[in-house]
Amino acid sequence: MTRAYNFSAGPAVLPLPVLEQVREELIDWQGSDMSVMEMSHRGKHFTRIAEQAEADLRDLLAIPDEYKVLFLQGGATAQFAMVPLNLLGKHNKADYLNTGQWSKKAIKEAKRYTTVNQVASSEADNFSTIPTFASWRCNPNAAYLHYTPNETIGGLEFHWVPDAKVPLVADMSSTLLSRPIDVSQFGLIYAGAQKNIGPAGLTLVIVSQDVLDQTSARPETPTLFDYRVQAQAGSMSNTPPTFAWYVAGLVFQWLKQQGGLSAMAEHNQAKANMLYACIDESGFYTNPIDPACRSWMNVPFTLADAAHDATFLQEAKNAGLLELKGHRSVGGMRASIYNAMPLEGVQALVEFMREFERRYG
Amino acid sequence: MTRAYNFSAGPAVLPLPVLEQVREELIDWQGSDMSVMEMSHRGKHFTRIAEQAEADLRDLLAIPDEYKVLFLQGGATAQFAMVPLNLLGKHNKADYLNTGQWSKKAIKEAKRYTTVNQVASSEADNFSTIPTFASWRCNPNAAYLHYTPNETIGGLEFHWVPDAKVPLVADMSSTLLSRPIDVSQFGLIYAGAQKNIGPAGLTLVIVSQDVLDQTSARPETPTLFDYRVQAQAGSMSNTPPTFAWYVAGLVFQWLKQQGGLSAMAEHNQAKANMLYACIDESGFYTNPIDPACRSWMNVPFTLADAAHDATFLQEAKNAGLLELKGHRSVGGMRASIYNAMPLEGVQALVEFMREFERRYG
Repeated sequence: MTRAYNFSAGPAVLPLPVLEQVREELIDWQGSDMSVMEMSHRGKHFTRIAEQAEADLRDLLAIPDEYKVLFLQGGATAQFAMVPLNLLGKHNKADYLNTGQWSKKAIKEAKRYTTVNQVASSEADNFSTIPTFASWRCNPNAAYLHYTPNETIGGLEFHWVPDAKVPLVADMSSTLLSRPIDVSQFGLIYAGAQKNIGPAGLTLVIVSQDVLDQTSARPETPTLFDYRVQAQAGSMSNTPPTFAWYVAGLVFQWLKQQGGLSAMAEHNQAKANMLYACIDESGFYTNPIDPACRSWMNVPFTLADAAHDATFLQEAKNAGLLELKGHRSVGGMRASIYNAMPLEGVQALVEFMREFERRYG
Repeated sequence: MTRAYNFSAGPAVLPLPVLEQVREELIDWQGSDMSVMEMSHRGKHFTRIAEQAEADLRDLLAIPDEYKVLFLQGGATAQFAMVPLNLLGKHNKADYLNTGQWSKKAIKEAKRYTTVNQVASSEADNFSTIPTFASWRCNPNAAYLHYTPNETIGGLEFHWVPDAKVPLVADMSSTLLSRPIDVSQFGLIYAGAQKNIGPAGLTLVIVSQDVLDQTSARPETPTLFDYRVQAQAGSMSNTPPTFAWYVAGLVFQWLKQQGGLSAMAEHNQAKANMLYACIDESGFYTNPIDPACRSWMNVPFTLADAAHDATFLQEAKNAGLLELKGHRSVGGMRASIYNAMPLEGVQALVEFMREFERRYG
């Protein structure tokens, strides 16, 4: 059986061996006579699942001991509120970089709680590039500096980490686990699961205990939204999304089997290079992003004539290449090529694109 | 193969045919060549799943058209904050009934946002009964009246609905779908999924559009916590917990196949009667709750001598009767007998209890 290749931006393709294990254990997890979905989150089976997942994630990312790892709900959008509610403390200013639609959403929510200093923006360039770090007007008294290392919609990615003087907060929703990072450079990292981690409904937060200790949550913060409460409770301040946590744990094990994040970085860069080369070599496909800031994860591209879009999508689908339609705000196509997308999937896409160009270009 | 009977209070047993269908479709949902976990929440497949689930739920509960159904995250605990944040409006008072530990948690969170008028409490009776409605000191100017129709820990359940003069808000986490209700008696109903609905990580909210129209969310409400935003977005203000939503939809279909909620009520009452009869007929087991307010869903009981507790739990486990340990705050045992617990499971438990009493009583 050959599976179609699913280029969805998220919820996104999961590794097939993970899905197979989920299926195998679905009704009876390892002799427990229960599905993971049926287990008390405080029972010994789920405790083992939860602890193993955290340990594997800590291994993969080499997370320093002084960082807490939280398994929360609400997606990155919940974090857009949780970050200011938890980290502002007595400050009334936060720095935000604006590099695309997810940055803008984070900024919009933060403005509901504080004065946002937009340190720089590439909106005038239609978010096709990242403002040079020298041009950022950072406020040394900001509570934190927030940025979006990968813009899922625009297809823009940082290949460097800003040297922040205040706690650096990163929305890594579509890039976490795609390459090694140095966690100690960040005050707080968050990521919705449904890209490289697991099923939707789970959000990872990796946060420095120092950053939490420096302040406390604003009084209006819902208790469930208080990082300190969740850290204290091992993310079980109430019932966590147990099944999604379990699937994420299987993804972490799969990543270790693949050789960890250095191996994933090689794999992801190879896939991205192959796809961008196909685009750049053609006179038919265009990617609008500054080559220095192109995303390894999300590759938007347009056809020379948008009149061919529907045909492209239909023929791609017939060829087993799914979910290539671009975000409605951008148009054209987008291929999301997360960890679980095999090289063969990108090869198949590139071959299809060349053949399509030959016939319609 | 015989499955063990899982009496967990939640996450709890799911119907076996639902788990079997999930397993069957896990890697390829109905020819889509994708797992439900891998589907875009805005794609046609998941749209179909989501809409069918809502339609089936509306059927089951006969939800009037003027009520919105929301599929959210965060569990009932998130609702403890969302209810006051969304429904207080210009009021600065809300009425709460206190019948147990979940009531108390709701009250504690509400107090962070408003003045709580505790209309009545059975705490002095160790939460063994429900204060008579005539004794409640309701405030006609309260923004709403909140109560907990089933106290999962204490095992106390309402078999009637208060005649509220203000919008009635009910935490139905462990009772929703166990029997028919008249939704029009309520302003807002919420329920964490992991009892009678589906996997943890999903929360149902059924809310009257009138109630939403009467006020607006407080300014400090995280956008994701605003019922109006979620209602407007069809619960897709951001990526919802798609897989849990799908499993809940299968549970709704299973409930319809069982004959709907009238059939479930008969089934649940029969199970509860059998278990309470066993307890009451014995001189060995005790349930502390006023018989008029005993829960059909959660049945706590103690042994005449707590020294036998560990033996009881071990022998029950050997007999395929799992997760009977009572909540740490109550001690003893607790059998949660939600919709998915078959009559045979309660029969097996009752036989085991009688035999245990014969040997140790």
